[in-house]
Amino acid sequence: MRFDHVGVATRDAADLADLFEGLLHAPIAHEETFDGMDVVFLELDGGYFELLEPDDGDAIAGYLDREGPGIHHVALATDDLRGALDRARDLGVDLVDEEPRPGAWGHEVAFLHPRSTGGVLVEFVEH
Amino acid sequence: MRFDHVGVATRDAADLADLFEGLLHAPIAHEETFDGMDVVFLELDGGYFELLEPDDGDAIAGYLDREGPGIHHVALATDDLRGALDRARDLGVDLVDEEPRPGAWGHEVAFLHPRSTGGVLVEFVEH
Repeated sequence: MRFDHVGVATRDAADLADLFEGLLHAPIAHEETFDGMDVVFLELDGGYFELLEPDDGDAIAGYLDREGPGIHHVALATDDLRGALDRARDLGVDLVDEEPRPGAWGHEVAFLHPRSTGGVLVEFVEH
Repeated sequence: MRFDHVGVATRDAADLADLFEGLLHAPIAHEETFDGMDVVFLELDGGYFELLEPDDGDAIAGYLDREGPGIHHVALATDDLRGALDRARDLGVDLVDEEPRPGAWGHEVAFLHPRSTGGVLVEFVEH
């Protein structure tokens, strides 16, 4: 497992990307509209920030209404996503996604439920 | 700037360390009591989780009462902490720490105020 990215919920991804590019020297590596969100990946040494802005979907809009902007999840990369999910199940961790599903940037992803992981929304990602 | 760690507020660092060791293959790399908190660093490829449990101080206890357990901050490592703070100031970012201060594990750290950074509590750390 290696750090892949930190996901951030925001109402203005372009504005936050601009700030983080200046503040952290983190240029835009990828942008797309995915699953009703405008998604921007900013590249740092050793990983990415993934900025998530609501487009025409509810996924991140509801979170923003409830929690406000800020860190949404942490994503860990694995070369064996199904094995990682099996291990999570064996440890009694509740899964949001029982099977890998397509994620942003063409990756396979699965989320674990934060009620099982100390309130931390963990995403597994396989590139 | 490179990813250093994701800080997690928890009421039971030992229990969460145990889970993350099994789930993420993230063994304990360092433990200490610091600034009224029990602090546990778990090592992953490319960074750490820093688990923060209240000991005899209020720093993280107040956060837990207010927000509950979960991701607390993201830390980015730099070889020039003072330069990074100067750049933040130049960009109009509010700082929690105007100057570097001693952090856990013997590092120098400074936090930026999340009101300036899209709700993300950012820590700069210099090893």
